Amino acid sequence: MLKLYSFGPAANSLKPMLTLSEKMEYDRDFTVHRLDPTNFEHHQDWFKAINPRGQVPALEDQGRIVTESTVICEYLEDAHPTEVKLRPDDHFDRAQMRVWTKWVDEYFCWCVSTIGWHRGIKPIAQKLSDAEFEEHLKKIPIPEQQVKWRRAREGFPQDLLDEEMRKIAVSVRRLDDHLADNEWLAGGMYTLADICNYAIAGGMQFGFAEMVNADDTPHLLRWIEQIAARPAVQRMYATVPLEKLGTRD
Amino acid sequence: MLKLYSFGPAANSLKPMLTLSEKMEYDRDFTVHRLDPTNFEHHQDWFKAINPRGQVPALEDQGRIVTESTVICEYLEDAHPTEVKLRPDDHFDRAQMRVWTKWVDEYFCWCVSTIGWHRGIKPIAQKLSDAEFEEHLKKIPIPEQQVKWRRAREGFPQDLLDEEMRKIAVSVRRLDDHLADNEWLAGGMYTLADICNYAIAGGMQFGFAEMVNADDTPHLLRWIEQIAARPAVQRMYATVPLEKLGTRD
Repeated sequence: MLKLYSFGPAANSLKPMLTLSEKMEYDRDFTVHRLDPTNFEHHQDWFKAINPRGQVPALEDQGRIVTESTVICEYLEDAHPTEVKLRPDDHFDRAQMRVWTKWVDEYFCWCVSTIGWHRGIKPIAQKLSDAEFEEHLKKIPIPEQQVKWRRAREGFPQDLLDEEMRKIAVSVRRLDDHLADNEWLAGGMYTLADICNYAIAGGMQFGFAEMVNADDTPHLLRWIEQIAARPAVQRMYATVPLEKLGTRD
Repeated sequence: MLKLYSFGPAANSLKPMLTLSEKMEYDRDFTVHRLDPTNFEHHQDWFKAINPRGQVPALEDQGRIVTESTVICEYLEDAHPTEVKLRPDDHFDRAQMRVWTKWVDEYFCWCVSTIGWHRGIKPIAQKLSDAEFEEHLKKIPIPEQQVKWRRAREGFPQDLLDEEMRKIAVSVRRLDDHLADNEWLAGGMYTLADICNYAIAGGMQFGFAEMVNADDTPHLLRWIEQIAARPAVQRMYATVPLEKLGTRD
């Protein structure tokens, strides 16, 4: 059985969860080992033995570990083909799909992530004493993540937050413009492009309601609702409870 | 015949050039239409009719246009399989390859790019009068690129340049550490992981000699020389002259 190490169904953890849920059955074909981010479980030694970079999601498949959310999604299509195809067969359409998965990974997810850290990680980091925080920082294997934790705790500079909000507005506009003329992002079918972008955009009608709403981004909203209504997505949300940062469940 | 629109063989343009050169023969199977960046040719209307985002490289294949350098490389493997395979057949190895192509696109190339713009684009932008510059800016279709041109002309803040140099040092260390134990980046063979990383790292022994040299990064240097010595790479450099920013040829 495949085993996904992840946080709850949001952001990067959501990408392989959605992919798995479309293709396979929970508890029969795959299982989810949920880590607790508020307890820094992903930085504990037992998990760093699985992914030395201390990052979720990570997929275990017959003792081998695949990391990076988008890579895991492509891997699932490569290594576990099922009747449900989440990549177009046409080479050109598949390339368009990858333009979108690449864009979310190198642009869209980063600006949203900074605001997410500002809202969700900053209060967690500030609850720690200086000594606890420094002790924790030592456990983070990626230098970049150490820097990000430190900046989140100090508070990101306002000009950076403004810049990230500008980029989010650009991203939301790009998605809405494309979805005005297309039911799905690539190849006229539900693909990894939709899954990977939904993982970031899916909750923005709540968290970024001033940008993502029926007046300003009707097509993006239509697409979000269309994905949320998919049986596989509903099954997935029913199985794994939504992440609540700052709480324990 | 395939047609690649690109700058000279450096950075993102180099990725599909290396891929094409390994798989096919120049002037028989593919040709390169070289655009002149110092003349902003990629922002001219004729090219924006080909790629509305005004970015190279772009590949034309029987009237269809594939964009984004890494996506083009995967597309060439999907749509034009040849005896030369640049992706591992093993699914797990292929995932490792994608971890590296993803990393170069979302982390490594960006920090190197900022320094490249600081060194190469800033002087070009500063040669323009204010009116010429504003006129030019209007032709750039991606808002993000407009911002980048403006910042390059004003001069990137020193703290940003310092931060990017820190990230380059992290990147170079990561590559050297991995190449200490591995001949190639993924799957024990020359793959798109090597091609896409070489496109960024390949000249750093000259441009970033204080970081990439025989003492500090012997394994990275060995790997760079190993790739530079490949017959396909030498053929490619013999065919297309190296980009010289700020000059016309």
